[in-house]
Amino acid sequence: MPEAPFIPVIPAGGAGTRLWPLSRRARPKFLLDLTGSGTSLLQQTVQRLAPLADSPPIIVTGGAQAGAVRVQLDEMGSPGSGVRARIITEPSPRSSMPAIALAAALVEHEEPDAVIGSFAADHLISAPEDFARDVAAARQVAELGYLVTLGIRPTSPATGFGYIEQAPAEQHPAGPGTDPAACRALGALPVSRFVEKPDLDTAERFVAAGTFFWNAGMFVVRARVLLDELAVQIPGLARGVREIAAASGTEKYDEVLARNWPTLTSIAIDHALAEPLAAAGRVAVVPASFGWDDVGDFAALARQLREWGPDADGSDVRVLGTSTVDAIGSAATVYGSTDRHIALVGLQGISIVDTEDALLVLADDHAQDLTRLVDLLDEHGRGRLR
Amino acid sequence: MPEAPFIPVIPAGGAGTRLWPLSRRARPKFLLDLTGSGTSLLQQTVQRLAPLADSPPIIVTGGAQAGAVRVQLDEMGSPGSGVRARIITEPSPRSSMPAIALAAALVEHEEPDAVIGSFAADHLISAPEDFARDVAAARQVAELGYLVTLGIRPTSPATGFGYIEQAPAEQHPAGPGTDPAACRALGALPVSRFVEKPDLDTAERFVAAGTFFWNAGMFVVRARVLLDELAVQIPGLARGVREIAAASGTEKYDEVLARNWPTLTSIAIDHALAEPLAAAGRVAVVPASFGWDDVGDFAALARQLREWGPDADGSDVRVLGTSTVDAIGSAATVYGSTDRHIALVGLQGISIVDTEDALLVLADDHAQDLTRLVDLLDEHGRGRLR
Repeated sequence: MPEAPFIPVIPAGGAGTRLWPLSRRARPKFLLDLTGSGTSLLQQTVQRLAPLADSPPIIVTGGAQAGAVRVQLDEMGSPGSGVRARIITEPSPRSSMPAIALAAALVEHEEPDAVIGSFAADHLISAPEDFARDVAAARQVAELGYLVTLGIRPTSPATGFGYIEQAPAEQHPAGPGTDPAACRALGALPVSRFVEKPDLDTAERFVAAGTFFWNAGMFVVRARVLLDELAVQIPGLARGVREIAAASGTEKYDEVLARNWPTLTSIAIDHALAEPLAAAGRVAVVPASFGWDDVGDFAALARQLREWGPDADGSDVRVLGTSTVDAIGSAATVYGSTDRHIALVGLQGISIVDTEDALLVLADDHAQDLTRLVDLLDEHGRGRLR
Repeated sequence: MPEAPFIPVIPAGGAGTRLWPLSRRARPKFLLDLTGSGTSLLQQTVQRLAPLADSPPIIVTGGAQAGAVRVQLDEMGSPGSGVRARIITEPSPRSSMPAIALAAALVEHEEPDAVIGSFAADHLISAPEDFARDVAAARQVAELGYLVTLGIRPTSPATGFGYIEQAPAEQHPAGPGTDPAACRALGALPVSRFVEKPDLDTAERFVAAGTFFWNAGMFVVRARVLLDELAVQIPGLARGVREIAAASGTEKYDEVLARNWPTLTSIAIDHALAEPLAAAGRVAVVPASFGWDDVGDFAALARQLREWGPDADGSDVRVLGTSTVDAIGSAATVYGSTDRHIALVGLQGISIVDTEDALLVLADDHAQDLTRLVDLLDEHGRGRLR
């Protein structure tokens, strides 16, 4: 059983364009209910993590979203109370490492031995009991001093994800703070390297090799280990977040945050920590036993809804939202909650997003082209729709 | 040159479902601008016929549409005056023969020698000068006593139209009121028969034979000939419309119309007159030299707009209406004038109709299934949208 206290960290940022106009700058994907469950991806993430936590989860989000995050947290609890979670507001977006490092520094400041677990606010995960078991294993490996990631066994040669390669036991580098035998005993595998999004040929080799995982951006690590290693790799970043954390709870906090934040290196945790630690043999992967999807575009969302979602009467049409839909000879996905009635004839593999100010009709097999279309909004003076 | 006065008749009825939700019960196809020209099909029909007319065209329409028809006619003229056209209101829809017969009876009552020409209010016709020349030829043949139709040379084995077969000269039946030689001298061909919508095999044979025309429902005939022959075929119908016409201009008109109208046989002019007169050798066809399309469904409309309509910048998307559209990798047709912005990605052969209360997304190659979908509206308690 893990012994150190566990505190989840939920970076909730990123105004992606691949689910526009369902997601907008002011209403990012993590605030959306993409499963028809009545809860947003953020709410599901909090619900999944809160039972595993020894202190309230820390949500790191942007100033523009903090209010909406608070409202969604309040919705989850009994009236007036809400789920206990802590919201840290970033003065400006600076990629994932500063956000996670700041949360780690606050945890280290308050509970020096604690393990943090960082999980994206906008991914779908099935089988929460499997997730809980995998996180428990990751915590124990983290207590050994590892940076632990939960890796997803690839089901296709996807080119939209980074990959994680497990190290062959005999080639595993030994060094300070590594204990491959204990690591394996807990069901984790030492990691040799992280690989950025590959081309298709490379992805196919990875899948065929059987020794690669998808990188789902899930990291479990002692807060102090994270910050000490960060102090080696990017000293100013570790120093900055520790200075902010030291001011936590005082009247100087806002000033110290505002002064330090713009100086922090804007970098992803993969580059800042995961890659150098993997090279040093200090990263382990716990193979995920739960279902996972990052719902990266409308094609992925349509696949998810086909597996999990509600089925409109007598057709192969999924409806997310309250829109009324009639369909003939169609396999399609509809997102909408306007008063408008929606009628579909003869459509195959089409997604339709019906909102008050924008309508998207998209062929799922061209879902990746949506980003270019959203770029057109700015070019054509319609940036208000983003 | 034709000598008898010519008076166009425009039956403007029919609440079709094949262009829903662009067309509605309260806004039938003939009231719509389907070409982006700023004028409705009805207005185009009036504009095309008025210059050929010796008395104002007669529009026969339903009570529900009469007000909208008047507004559109007023729009066409100088303020306050409008185009001179006469609107006859049917107390209830009774198919095409009663509507055309009533117009013929009013004409006969006022100008006993006049030739009428009946043309649908909701078809597209290109090259108005060719149309005018063909109508002039038809008028001269009609003065010989024929029922003259303008036939469309088929460009495909369409199964959605009726066909007209020209008679071989040597087999042409002679009889009272026929003069095949004079008819041919005027560029018209005697007709042997009208054929209802055929199956595909039959249509292919017709097209291969080269002796068939599409029946576009265009009839040119002396009013008196039409009514005298109708008096032979369906005596009560001829008697009824002549009784109504006799009351025209008197205070009894409304009462006589209301009393007689429900007694008139509800029948199409093809069955009531064209078929029996063809068998008697008294129908002639003038091969149309103009372009024609009945814009019967969204596939036909998309084809038309591809030939004639405006092209959205840098894509193969046609937009009818004021909607703003961005598209990537799409060949589609958009109908809309809402404030909503429309975005298309990767669509091929799709029509989108965006209205305030209903949205249709349709694969053009399934356009014929739309009627079934509109039926669903009633079944699902959404009849208000029809």
